[in-house]
Amino acid sequence: MMVRIGQGYDLHRLEDGLPLIIGGVRIDSAKGSVAHSDGDVLLHALADALYGAVADGDIGYHFPPSNPDYRNLNSAVILKHAVNLTREKGFSISNIDCTVVLQKPILRPYMNDIIGKIAELCSIPSEAVSVKAKTKEGVDSTGKGEAIEAFSSVLIYRS
Amino acid sequence: MMVRIGQGYDLHRLEDGLPLIIGGVRIDSAKGSVAHSDGDVLLHALADALYGAVADGDIGYHFPPSNPDYRNLNSAVILKHAVNLTREKGFSISNIDCTVVLQKPILRPYMNDIIGKIAELCSIPSEAVSVKAKTKEGVDSTGKGEAIEAFSSVLIYRS
Amino acid sequence: MMVRIGQGYDLHRLEDGLPLIIGGVRIDSAKGSVAHSDGDVLLHALADALYGAVADGDIGYHFPPSNPDYRNLNSAVILKHAVNLTREKGFSISNIDCTVVLQKPILRPYMNDIIGKIAELCSIPSEAVSVKAKTKEGVDSTGKGEAIEAFSSVLIYRS
Repeated sequence: MMVRIGQGYDLHRLEDGLPLIIGGVRIDSAKGSVAHSDGDVLLHALADALYGAVADGDIGYHFPPSNPDYRNLNSAVILKHAVNLTREKGFSISNIDCTVVLQKPILRPYMNDIIGKIAELCSIPSEAVSVKAKTKEGVDSTGKGEAIEAFSSVLIYRS
Repeated sequence: MMVRIGQGYDLHRLEDGLPLIIGGVRIDSAKGSVAHSDGDVLLHALADALYGAVADGDIGYHFPPSNPDYRNLNSAVILKHAVNLTREKGFSISNIDCTVVLQKPILRPYMNDIIGKIAELCSIPSEAVSVKAKTKEGVDSTGKGEAIEAFSSVLIYRS
Repeated sequence: MMVRIGQGYDLHRLEDGLPLIIGGVRIDSAKGSVAHSDGDVLLHALADALYGAVADGDIGYHFPPSNPDYRNLNSAVILKHAVNLTREKGFSISNIDCTVVLQKPILRPYMNDIIGKIAELCSIPSEAVSVKAKTKEGVDSTGKGEAIEAFSSVLIYRS
């Protein structure tokens, strides 16, 4: 068995009146992500972890922000692309673990939906997906509510 | 063999005159963690990595800060809970690797004690535990000595 | 098969007129790393990930900055030391995945060289190495161009 690791990190600035989408789920929030795409920090970190695990570029390489076709892009399209690339290379996803760092709102009420959505987009059982939440205790941009961050880790394998 | 990955991140603000506990070890420091529990950033990041590896919530889910029972909670209780959950699901811990980001004091003199304490709490040999230290070179809240951060990674397996 | 995980994090401050070296490759940039060594944030994060995977200290332990012998040290020497330690303990590197967080310049034109250099230093095929790039969207020290950060993940195994 061959096992490989992938990691992803993403940050978006938050501004009043924009939509906040995390893991494909619309969050009720006064602030939302500033981005070329739909600004889904969690799906971006996860797609980058898959690109990293198969050593095939990153989001900026596959979906350059300079390309106007990718404005307001649904991040599910990005994640699907990374998942397909992983499968084409003969790998299966063992599991996914992520952390979203956000001062507010509390994400707990959305967690089952977020986990279910990621499992669906990756075609894996929800038992293989974990999303955890942290605040940044009021410090730095994320703590002050001016940004959102996500860390993602994946393990993939080929028999 | 089934192998799974887990990751954890935690940050606590530091204030004068509070105790600083890292990995269950009391550190001699002018500042300590602001927290509901004992503020052990390293054990929190590690517990979250285990919850993530088995895809079963996070610290905030298992030990909600709104519950007054968890005030001043010894973080060893949290880590033990995560370790037990991991074992109940049939998994063993392959290894643990962590990074503590702290401007001062230097953690090197405490490292063997910290590693020994984590190994004991997880019931694994100390050769399976790594804790590394970094400063943040004076930048952002952690660099200015106003916060402490920890990153944790774990690999678990089931035969 | 025994599989182990390692993680590394590093940050350096950036200042005008200093060289910027990332993954052993000189980057054309107005600012460069403030450091005792050559300030290669990516090779440092990667060396720490290997030290962590084999649970044998960290860069500060093996190359203490207080030792004048290590001033302006080529970070390739540090990474080589960590790679040798990994092999001496009987482990092979399965794969490496890293993220460099830098506001500018764009690293894409340098990526193949960076990946090739890391593969060479680790004596593994370039298909086992991934380096991804992110900006920090203008926020915090890294976003303001005052610092550079790197995250590294490795998976090692022993048959």
